[in-house]
Amino acid sequence: MITEPRTLPGFMELLPNEQILFEQMKQKIEKVYQKFGFLPLDTPVLELSEVLLAKAGGETEKQIYRFEKGDTDIAMRFDLTVPLAKYVAKNYGNLSFPFRRYQIGKVYRGERAQKGRFREFYQCDIDVIGDGELSIVNDAEIPSVIYQLMKELGFDDFTIRINNRKILNGLFESINQKENATDILRIIDKIDKIGADATEEELQKLGLEQKAINQIMSFISINGTTNEKLEKLQKLNIENDSFKIGLEELIEVVKYIRIFGVPDTNFKVDLTIARGLDYYTGTVYETFLNDYRELGSVCSGGRYENLAEYYTDKKLPGVGISIGLTRLFYKLNELNLIKANKYSMADVLIIPMTQEMEKPIELASQLRSLGISTEVYLNDKKLKAKMKYADKLKIPYVIVIGEDEITSGTVKVKNMETGEEKQSKLIAEEIIDKLK
Amino acid sequence: MITEPRTLPGFMELLPNEQILFEQMKQKIEKVYQKFGFLPLDTPVLELSEVLLAKAGGETEKQIYRFEKGDTDIAMRFDLTVPLAKYVAKNYGNLSFPFRRYQIGKVYRGERAQKGRFREFYQCDIDVIGDGELSIVNDAEIPSVIYQLMKELGFDDFTIRINNRKILNGLFESINQKENATDILRIIDKIDKIGADATEEELQKLGLEQKAINQIMSFISINGTTNEKLEKLQKLNIENDSFKIGLEELIEVVKYIRIFGVPDTNFKVDLTIARGLDYYTGTVYETFLNDYRELGSVCSGGRYENLAEYYTDKKLPGVGISIGLTRLFYKLNELNLIKANKYSMADVLIIPMTQEMEKPIELASQLRSLGISTEVYLNDKKLKAKMKYADKLKIPYVIVIGEDEITSGTVKVKNMETGEEKQSKLIAEEIIDKLK
Repeated sequence: MITEPRTLPGFMELLPNEQILFEQMKQKIEKVYQKFGFLPLDTPVLELSEVLLAKAGGETEKQIYRFEKGDTDIAMRFDLTVPLAKYVAKNYGNLSFPFRRYQIGKVYRGERAQKGRFREFYQCDIDVIGDGELSIVNDAEIPSVIYQLMKELGFDDFTIRINNRKILNGLFESINQKENATDILRIIDKIDKIGADATEEELQKLGLEQKAINQIMSFISINGTTNEKLEKLQKLNIENDSFKIGLEELIEVVKYIRIFGVPDTNFKVDLTIARGLDYYTGTVYETFLNDYRELGSVCSGGRYENLAEYYTDKKLPGVGISIGLTRLFYKLNELNLIKANKYSMADVLIIPMTQEMEKPIELASQLRSLGISTEVYLNDKKLKAKMKYADKLKIPYVIVIGEDEITSGTVKVKNMETGEEKQSKLIAEEIIDKLK
Repeated sequence: MITEPRTLPGFMELLPNEQILFEQMKQKIEKVYQKFGFLPLDTPVLELSEVLLAKAGGETEKQIYRFEKGDTDIAMRFDLTVPLAKYVAKNYGNLSFPFRRYQIGKVYRGERAQKGRFREFYQCDIDVIGDGELSIVNDAEIPSVIYQLMKELGFDDFTIRINNRKILNGLFESINQKENATDILRIIDKIDKIGADATEEELQKLGLEQKAINQIMSFISINGTTNEKLEKLQKLNIENDSFKIGLEELIEVVKYIRIFGVPDTNFKVDLTIARGLDYYTGTVYETFLNDYRELGSVCSGGRYENLAEYYTDKKLPGVGISIGLTRLFYKLNELNLIKANKYSMADVLIIPMTQEMEKPIELASQLRSLGISTEVYLNDKKLKAKMKYADKLKIPYVIVIGEDEITSGTVKVKNMETGEEKQSKLIAEEIIDKLK
């Protein structure tokens, strides 16, 4: 009996040529993380529900894949932050702080399936965790990682938007709206989507007086260069400790971001950014492709007071970012925006035209030992079918080895893109020269 | 309330230094697969139970993590072969054959938890799938991939053992034991563990006549060099088609293995190897570290007639291997047998001793742009604590930048292993020379 070979909706499964692009993106991100010395981490996809859901609630909990196996109540991870918190609390005594880790792995959310939304997706995270304290300079290094990352992915016109939650919280305290802070944050976080008028309206609905609304609106409409914005914030003279500390932090972060070599064209202070509602406590980041704002933030994160309060009494402040790679890849691929170094796995396909395999295989081994991915076409087909195979796989170079080539000790290297063919001696070095 | 941060039993979670070794092993395997031009594949961890379990049964099915989410009956993949079968059947029209793919990913089996057994583990697979037919030369390329792989992992004294299931099946047919074939295979597959006497005993228990047992025992005790074994097999003069075809295939495979450059010291014909009981139909492989036979086969696989018969009418013969990386890593690590290129993520730790961060950060950027993973210690600690951090993370080089260094434009590079310190100008190129 034949079962129809289906894949679950909301689960990405790519054809080989797309998978190659995906792997390259993943690897570029990983390489940047590694260059900054972040340590690799791999945690289980499955955790005890009791542990994984120690903090979760509301929307998140509904989306969890959760089940029982024997007597064990198990859940699939829905992000890489909770497993990190568990890991750091569990291994506290064996880790060196600041603990800088990257993790690239699949996470699971049983969301309503729709185009461009995934139930299984890769997150690519970095976090720096301090033991008790963590210098503000770390908050400035993170944007420099984002900057390198975006460059590596082939983007130039992007903006890292930076804010500090303490400034927002201080502002709300100063206008006696502390208890409404979460709601106000949620509203102003949407200003880019809904516009200023709708924002005011929503603030009214929340029951704010016009005076408070005016102060919020004039605050979030502060504009100008980064330095001008910082000056205007100082001139607001808001007498609130949280506001003052937040502003000091933001000034420090901006100062160090520049030292880290991120140009002013690629970052800016954006006072409307708040990110997660109760998680972040200081610096927050979002990153936008300026020509494709509709993609939303492609890389976001921020500073938090306490990573693992649900697992330990130790105070573990941290700062980090996350990239939702699966969705990002899907969108960039749809828009044809992925810049790849190569579109095939093999650099060279060697096509033997006789039963004599020694020369083709020997040449393949030579090429591989020189770092060139090489495939030998081992099956009995007509030349045309073999060439079509190379073409479909987008292999850039083909070397045909027939009677003539074996007798004369030469090979023909064909550039599949230009169609150009060159005869040369059967020496790998020469072929490599051609491949360059 | 504090929840104890636990990890599920049977799920590997490593400390950073071990994780670095694990990642290196994984990457070495991936690099070899890529060098041979295998295409990357990534399939979902979750599949429809109906699809994933179309074939499974018995022991495997009991171990499956399976659950319902809404109305959907879902299962976690327990290997990478069934998802491959589904993928090839589903995407048949969009793939080029032979379809050569590698996949490295986690699979799940709810086995009884015990030391060295894992419920979540990485498999690293390659398979070559033909459309209708697949040349026997592919069966010889696979051992050459294993050979490169083992070399890359730092092993020299290993043996790839090769057999052909048709030879075994033909032998059993020739002594009228076809219906007992599965049982006999299971018994002789264990001969290395239980010895010849116990093997004979088990064959007797199965009800075999002494004559048949003698033939089996003399068959599996064929010895000598590879060529001698092949000659002795021919001289058995067993009049059975399956036996003859199997022997011809084995002779071909041995011939091409040599052409693929695998030395006779690293492979041999082993007539006792049968592998999976009903899956493989031709060539089979196992790979042993000769000094650590107790690890069992570290890399196994073989040829199968039909990959996806449960999903399509198309005949898709294939040949492949799998490495159970998690268990292999665990065992090698336990035996201290892992050869690593590096034991830390960062090659260099830069330690600023003043508030002046420009020089340290600038140097870090320079080093990174030259491919050297560099971390700047960004937190306010005593020098001793910073050095201890470098030491615990096994970072090989430390550069301390204090007042003197900034004024003089020089830096001290300390080799953490030898303790040797060298003063040099603040020029990245010079530091790189030292790092070499």
